Amino acid sequence: MTSLLRTRPATTPAMEAVFDDDTVLHHVLAFEAQLALAEAAEGVIDPADARMIADLCAEIALDPARIADEAALAGTLAIPLVAQLRIALPESAAQAVHRGATSQDVADTVLMLQVRAAEELLRADLAATAAALAALAQRHAATPAIGRTLLQDALPISLGLRFAQWRKGIADAADRLEREVAEGATLQFGGAAGARSGLAGKGEAVASRLARALGLPSSPPWHARRGGIAGIAAALAIVLGALGKMARDVSLLAQNGIGEGREPAISGRGGSSAMAHKRNPTGCQIALSAALRAPGLVAGILAGLPAEQERGLGGWQAEGPVLAELFLIAAGAAAAMAAVAQGLEIDEAALARNLAAAGVGDDIGESGAIVVSLLADQQRD
Amino acid sequence: MTSLLRTRPATTPAMEAVFDDDTVLHHVLAFEAQLALAEAAEGVIDPADARMIADLCAEIALDPARIADEAALAGTLAIPLVAQLRIALPESAAQAVHRGATSQDVADTVLMLQVRAAEELLRADLAATAAALAALAQRHAATPAIGRTLLQDALPISLGLRFAQWRKGIADAADRLEREVAEGATLQFGGAAGARSGLAGKGEAVASRLARALGLPSSPPWHARRGGIAGIAAALAIVLGALGKMARDVSLLAQNGIGEGREPAISGRGGSSAMAHKRNPTGCQIALSAALRAPGLVAGILAGLPAEQERGLGGWQAEGPVLAELFLIAAGAAAAMAAVAQGLEIDEAALARNLAAAGVGDDIGESGAIVVSLLADQQRD
Amino acid sequence: MTSLLRTRPATTPAMEAVFDDDTVLHHVLAFEAQLALAEAAEGVIDPADARMIADLCAEIALDPARIADEAALAGTLAIPLVAQLRIALPESAAQAVHRGATSQDVADTVLMLQVRAAEELLRADLAATAAALAALAQRHAATPAIGRTLLQDALPISLGLRFAQWRKGIADAADRLEREVAEGATLQFGGAAGARSGLAGKGEAVASRLARALGLPSSPPWHARRGGIAGIAAALAIVLGALGKMARDVSLLAQNGIGEGREPAISGRGGSSAMAHKRNPTGCQIALSAALRAPGLVAGILAGLPAEQERGLGGWQAEGPVLAELFLIAAGAAAAMAAVAQGLEIDEAALARNLAAAGVGDDIGESGAIVVSLLADQQRD
Amino acid sequence: MTSLLRTRPATTPAMEAVFDDDTVLHHVLAFEAQLALAEAAEGVIDPADARMIADLCAEIALDPARIADEAALAGTLAIPLVAQLRIALPESAAQAVHRGATSQDVADTVLMLQVRAAEELLRADLAATAAALAALAQRHAATPAIGRTLLQDALPISLGLRFAQWRKGIADAADRLEREVAEGATLQFGGAAGARSGLAGKGEAVASRLARALGLPSSPPWHARRGGIAGIAAALAIVLGALGKMARDVSLLAQNGIGEGREPAISGRGGSSAMAHKRNPTGCQIALSAALRAPGLVAGILAGLPAEQERGLGGWQAEGPVLAELFLIAAGAAAAMAAVAQGLEIDEAALARNLAAAGVGDDIGESGAIVVSLLADQQRD
Repeated sequence: MTSLLRTRPATTPAMEAVFDDDTVLHHVLAFEAQLALAEAAEGVIDPADARMIADLCAEIALDPARIADEAALAGTLAIPLVAQLRIALPESAAQAVHRGATSQDVADTVLMLQVRAAEELLRADLAATAAALAALAQRHAATPAIGRTLLQDALPISLGLRFAQWRKGIADAADRLEREVAEGATLQFGGAAGARSGLAGKGEAVASRLARALGLPSSPPWHARRGGIAGIAAALAIVLGALGKMARDVSLLAQNGIGEGREPAISGRGGSSAMAHKRNPTGCQIALSAALRAPGLVAGILAGLPAEQERGLGGWQAEGPVLAELFLIAAGAAAAMAAVAQGLEIDEAALARNLAAAGVGDDIGESGAIVVSLLADQQRD
Repeated sequence: MTSLLRTRPATTPAMEAVFDDDTVLHHVLAFEAQLALAEAAEGVIDPADARMIADLCAEIALDPARIADEAALAGTLAIPLVAQLRIALPESAAQAVHRGATSQDVADTVLMLQVRAAEELLRADLAATAAALAALAQRHAATPAIGRTLLQDALPISLGLRFAQWRKGIADAADRLEREVAEGATLQFGGAAGARSGLAGKGEAVASRLARALGLPSSPPWHARRGGIAGIAAALAIVLGALGKMARDVSLLAQNGIGEGREPAISGRGGSSAMAHKRNPTGCQIALSAALRAPGLVAGILAGLPAEQERGLGGWQAEGPVLAELFLIAAGAAAAMAAVAQGLEIDEAALARNLAAAGVGDDIGESGAIVVSLLADQQRD
Repeated sequence: MTSLLRTRPATTPAMEAVFDDDTVLHHVLAFEAQLALAEAAEGVIDPADARMIADLCAEIALDPARIADEAALAGTLAIPLVAQLRIALPESAAQAVHRGATSQDVADTVLMLQVRAAEELLRADLAATAAALAALAQRHAATPAIGRTLLQDALPISLGLRFAQWRKGIADAADRLEREVAEGATLQFGGAAGARSGLAGKGEAVASRLARALGLPSSPPWHARRGGIAGIAAALAIVLGALGKMARDVSLLAQNGIGEGREPAISGRGGSSAMAHKRNPTGCQIALSAALRAPGLVAGILAGLPAEQERGLGGWQAEGPVLAELFLIAAGAAAAMAAVAQGLEIDEAALARNLAAAGVGDDIGESGAIVVSLLADQQRD
Repeated sequence: MTSLLRTRPATTPAMEAVFDDDTVLHHVLAFEAQLALAEAAEGVIDPADARMIADLCAEIALDPARIADEAALAGTLAIPLVAQLRIALPESAAQAVHRGATSQDVADTVLMLQVRAAEELLRADLAATAAALAALAQRHAATPAIGRTLLQDALPISLGLRFAQWRKGIADAADRLEREVAEGATLQFGGAAGARSGLAGKGEAVASRLARALGLPSSPPWHARRGGIAGIAAALAIVLGALGKMARDVSLLAQNGIGEGREPAISGRGGSSAMAHKRNPTGCQIALSAALRAPGLVAGILAGLPAEQERGLGGWQAEGPVLAELFLIAAGAAAAMAAVAQGLEIDEAALARNLAAAGVGDDIGESGAIVVSLLADQQRD
């Protein structure tokens, strides 16, 4: 359905699974099941109906392609899916399905479940990268290297200082993402216009139960208040920028004529279809490519913030694909950079040669102390 | 592989087919086959080898998933694909495959073949939209309506003037796209570093033959000169903006309290999972959502223009997915707006009522003459 | 020097002052003076030299236009400014000026001083807006209104719920900005290559003293680690999005045919050069215009994250103007929306009329409870 | 009013003049004067009134700061300006000023006058750059150099091929800009709601006369049809990308360890406040910084395309500052790259040394023929 040239090179199988059809349908059915159970527990619907709904959601086999076609037409996934559930249920339970909920409640909540799973995956790769860089920083805390500014030789630094700066950028960005997800990825449950109508005053209690069952924090409805999602997207772009910074530097270090470091050799990676002698910085390419795309993707989400009225037209509907794309390319970049950090090849002779050629001595100033201070938070990794 | 929530709602099956795996592989194999035949015709490789390569490309069954995994690792699709061809060929033909070409030659040329097919599809939907709007503009060239500026009632215009403006925006944007594709979507064939080395001085002749066989204009290599692709991407965003403008207006006209027009009722479209009485402007939603995403997608392509040296690292690799996404969402928006233009429901009583309420008379000025001048180019549609 | 049509409409005089020439020069001279004093206190330079430098910085009259021309040529403001200081000092003090610092130390630190001042200004307008909206939300916690979704009448909500949602979006965005500024706006002091060389091991102590004197937190150098600035920029865009959301809604409410609310009449604002009868939503226009620009401005900053080596080429130099522009338009939007919130005109008859026309009753569900929960953090305002 | 750190480094005095206050006021007064004369010629207003208006526009001394303050409040420049003209005129002429026009007619037409002047300035610098690069390309059409791909040594090319590619990118981008300006920068004259009301059927004739007098093509009104402006903005970004590509390459060539080329030494440019030995690629920095900002600026303009109804709220008002900024930074980048192209220092020994080190021979393939084909359009420069 999608081109090889399109999404595969940039991500990991685990992250793909977070955003694949089966996962979406799984979350949607979990939403409807848990909603029914929560409403039954609060006396909003009949417990027997809830049981039937939950059982059906656990068993029903849906055809993703057909649902997708109908959702494309309807403008929302919930409409055809709820319709299929209703057809399979007796009248009373059919009436009880999706009670008090609206399509966006489902779409947003599912997306938030995916966001939490995706952030967890990403955090692991970022932590691995940071840990490998911390070890490199400590090992080379006093290894002199020429520092370069504005792409020109400047004054000596320690090689470890460079690694410690990479790590700090990645670790701080991972922290921001974790915080934004913790605050922003909450249950959405507001019903048609965000007032939780038709629930006999039990809306907040139902929301609490539903949130707990799904493993999300509860929250007042946020249908047209999308700052949390924008914060998550921006934090992802900053993660990608930090990975891209490391990739930029590794690719510059690997240049012929510089040669101070390079990506590890990985079988099947970095070859050239035209030149057998080349070893391309393909891990860096993945991270840089992702970093180039991220700013525009974030812009696409920020653009939807001025949403219309109680639920907007066009803005929030654009967020799902964009947020997914950001997580997918971030996963690819993080995995690539973890491998680079763990296997980075350093050429100490080249470091010494280039430093000597710069003719500015070998005083690395306070590089060591700065490394210590940049690593001060490394228990986080 | 990709989520229902991600790409399906926003596009058409025909456009999906342009960018699906089978099409990519078809184009890649066509490139390798025609390259071999062109090189044989110019005496660069043995004609018998070329014949074997072309036959193999016509017959070989490739596993997209496996190729995709290997391409993700290699950083380029051409490497695993050429390797598979070589394995299936005798020594001499294996040496002749992909002679003088580089991975990016394949990737860029395939993308340009897709771009031309995609633009043709899109043009048809844009022309249908423009034609329907031209008919509406003529029918209502003298129908008075209140004109609105800064979201406030202003002075009367004719309803046809509004339609003629929508049409002109879409038609001009379609023209720009056609021109950018005509100029920018050309063969890429430069070899490893863009100098067409290893072809015994026959590079230009091979390029001409290859271009003709693939149905593309020939061109000097443009590996690191990406302005043509950026021009296509920007033109697509302007198309999306023009469709979004129409969608914005239709959705505003359809508001309760205004009610001058609305999308046609399409079975399965525009319902609400919570409110049976609603008729949502789902076509407009698709177009507005696409228009919100387009600026950021274009930014992602523009960001890659300062590519490094003879072939860059990260920039051009980011273009494929972004350009595909732009065409996919443009197709969805264009199809949605074609349906809206062809079935737009107009409430003349509401028009008259709102105009009277504005209390500014019914002088529509030179609306009719402006309609004529805005439609002057309509033979293009 | 700059056009009337360019920056003025979008900002406040107080915010302009934060980013004007005099303020920049004031901060730059403060940096050089306090650096000299801190270095003298740590024994890095002679106290008498430091005194002379500080005195000169307090007295010197600089010609902004000449400095600007030279800075444009040099590529950095510090070079011509330090040169002017040196000319006016005796040899020993001239040698001591700017010791161990680099141009980017000055540029970044000055920008962070501006960011802190700008955020404080902005916070006041955001708090005023949030407070006015909180009062409105409480007053109308039970006033029924038709809720609208996808630009169509949906189900009733309370008017206060709409206001409480606007406030929550703005208050949360203000919190994020405050946090990002608190964490990210720190002293930059790393010297030529970020290793604090040439300071006899006193670099960290000098940094601490300098930071304290300037009123900034100290920090390890972050020359090529720009995530903090990106976080501030993104937070600003989310603030602008939240203001834009309120502006979007007010402008939709003010439409003829809806008429439920409108901006207060402000003398000299919102007129039309063509139609005396119009009252344009000019405050909303300012906020919406700013919200449209913000995503792209953030993209411009995110794009610079993959900075080269120890100090990059082109990326960080692009941040200053963009961050300033974001604060300037945010100030304009926040001031406009504060005035709108404080003077919002509500037409209760129109509310009732539109609600009745929707024909969906007047059950506002749990609007009141949601208002309470959305206002739970309002002591922050 | 604006900070030294903000706009100055990135532009030229000539481009600043195009967008400064005096120029804006000059154009606005020209619009009002020529409008009155055109209307008198068509019998719409009294010729004596027109004469008085034109005389006043030629003589009146306006205080830009006061006008700017009032314009900021009013939301448009035309309102306070027209008010000042009316005060200075007798009753009948006061009534005749600005007849049939709206604020946006003035704002858009003034912007288009600036765009044409700006494009002309820019074209000269782009042509100078292209001409210098063409000369370099011819001189070095057969000078061997190592070609680099994915930041790694690849195969030999000729140095002239690299220069010819830079030139082609810049020349094509200049052509696109010229074409977009020729088509898109037209008179705006539509009146309050775009129907040219209140002009006794003479609107089109008045528009023709006005356009001719101002030196712009005439056009039907395009108040809410902004594709032309978006096309100009996108073309500017592609120009900046082409200049950025050249700057990227020059800065990479100038690296220590590569050393094949570097910017010319320009007095006062490229120094370091910390390291006397450095020669920074400051021209490249200017171009790269501009290229980083351009994609986001374009996104800001594209985002406004789905404008509301007959004249939108917020979108077009955002375009002026953004388009001006794009031209300002493009001027700075073009001037910087013209100087670099004209004075580029080439180190042939380094070229030979790096080529030999690559160990891939010195066959430059068809570099020479490709140079010829890339220069085929150079009479344009």
